[in-house]
Amino acid sequence: MGLELLSSNRCFAGEQKRYQATSETLSGNTVFSVFIPDFASSNPVPVLIYLSGLTCTDENAVTKAGAQRVASELGIAVVFPDTSPRGDDVADDPDGSYDLGLGAGFYINATQSPWASHYQMETFIVEELPGLLGGVEGLDLSRVSICGHSMGGHGAMTLALKHPETYRSVSAFSPICNPTDCPWGHKAFTAYLGEDQAEWQQHDATALIRSGAAQVPLLVDQGAADAFLDDQLKPDALKAACDAAGFPLTYRLHEGFDHSYFFIASFIEEHLRFHAKFLHA
Amino acid sequence: MGLELLSSNRCFAGEQKRYQATSETLSGNTVFSVFIPDFASSNPVPVLIYLSGLTCTDENAVTKAGAQRVASELGIAVVFPDTSPRGDDVADDPDGSYDLGLGAGFYINATQSPWASHYQMETFIVEELPGLLGGVEGLDLSRVSICGHSMGGHGAMTLALKHPETYRSVSAFSPICNPTDCPWGHKAFTAYLGEDQAEWQQHDATALIRSGAAQVPLLVDQGAADAFLDDQLKPDALKAACDAAGFPLTYRLHEGFDHSYFFIASFIEEHLRFHAKFLHA
Repeated sequence: MGLELLSSNRCFAGEQKRYQATSETLSGNTVFSVFIPDFASSNPVPVLIYLSGLTCTDENAVTKAGAQRVASELGIAVVFPDTSPRGDDVADDPDGSYDLGLGAGFYINATQSPWASHYQMETFIVEELPGLLGGVEGLDLSRVSICGHSMGGHGAMTLALKHPETYRSVSAFSPICNPTDCPWGHKAFTAYLGEDQAEWQQHDATALIRSGAAQVPLLVDQGAADAFLDDQLKPDALKAACDAAGFPLTYRLHEGFDHSYFFIASFIEEHLRFHAKFLHA
Repeated sequence: MGLELLSSNRCFAGEQKRYQATSETLSGNTVFSVFIPDFASSNPVPVLIYLSGLTCTDENAVTKAGAQRVASELGIAVVFPDTSPRGDDVADDPDGSYDLGLGAGFYINATQSPWASHYQMETFIVEELPGLLGGVEGLDLSRVSICGHSMGGHGAMTLALKHPETYRSVSAFSPICNPTDCPWGHKAFTAYLGEDQAEWQQHDATALIRSGAAQVPLLVDQGAADAFLDDQLKPDALKAACDAAGFPLTYRLHEGFDHSYFFIASFIEEHLRFHAKFLHA
């Protein structure tokens, strides 16, 4: 279970590293990136996991989100996993669409053929990744929070709601809030989980909050000019569920911003400072 | 001479825009990006031109350098041109190398066949681009500075030294300081300018300073772990020329940093604040 260091680049007051490892859960190799602030050399630092959206690898947010400046200031490591299993033997959508298969793991454990043999992203993120991160020096894996963008925002919210003992806080940029009620979610859940919609509810942040999920501090930022807002993201459903349940949601709608990394970069600092309150508590 | 707006994304307190225009100088279409801070809607803002390095288009620095946060705070527009002419009829290196032809214009006017008909990047940047930017609202084109990375650092320094009336200040990340004495420069100058090395001296920052170029405030940042430092970049030659000429160079060598955008992102804020002193003077 060795980690192979693929690259290391000095960045602000820290190191941006990229690792390859063999994943038992995903039945193959996986690549992830870690930003390690210099603070970690004297005292282990807490960890923020960043889950990316459809089509991304670990690299998109590393190069475009601009998390390193404030992460180095706050003494927080940021871990960037891939969005799906990878490899020649991993099933992909025969239609070649961007929203199913490679790059579109939805952070759930697939139960259906041909997906189930590799697409086990929930177990990978929650259980196996912390073990792999044990091989990276300077991380305090008893203090972990989680965030993400779009499909990764859905992943961050559902994993935090299902595993509140694992994550101290959760935040999302433009998340898919109610995947049981949008085209992206319907397509992915039908393929990965099958037709039983009761099972789908276990992977839907809005449904989990409606069902009384334990409370985790939650920050959501959404662009008002996001082309996916009404059809795919549905933050109003999440807000209504939080209101009804008394769930601690901070929701902010930002005029003019769209679904891109320009939006993420504009607000990543505030997400890091939000998580720092809980990671350094 | 119309500008076509290709895209616009809200980013921090401003808009990241991308334009296409027909360039007479380059004999074809060219694409460039402009970050326009919100300040520009009440008062025209000064302009920093950012010249990218080998293989880049206008987009690399837009997505990876992280200039927008501080540019919006300081009220400075940042313009990102392409690194060469583009188009099916534009000559490229028949060997397909990354350091000649498309993506490698070196910010000079080629005199040799087959390059001369399109590769006129010096005239494009210094003369035609400001005219095209006249079609973008909110820019004060009487206040312009210039910066760049690697090949673009060479471009920024040589254009500022040759046109000191045009640029108030100049800065560079990891610039090619002495292209008449390195493999990248030899290859490009031989192809674009021919064998006459006297002509090459007009496009070499170190040679221009040795020859008594007019003074422009100059900031250079260099990574000490840059793989190209000794063979291609040669900042020691630049420093020696500046020392001998009493030229106002601020040179900083940064332990551990390499040639990547992680280096640029780590120091772009300080470059923007350096230029702000002159652009807002």
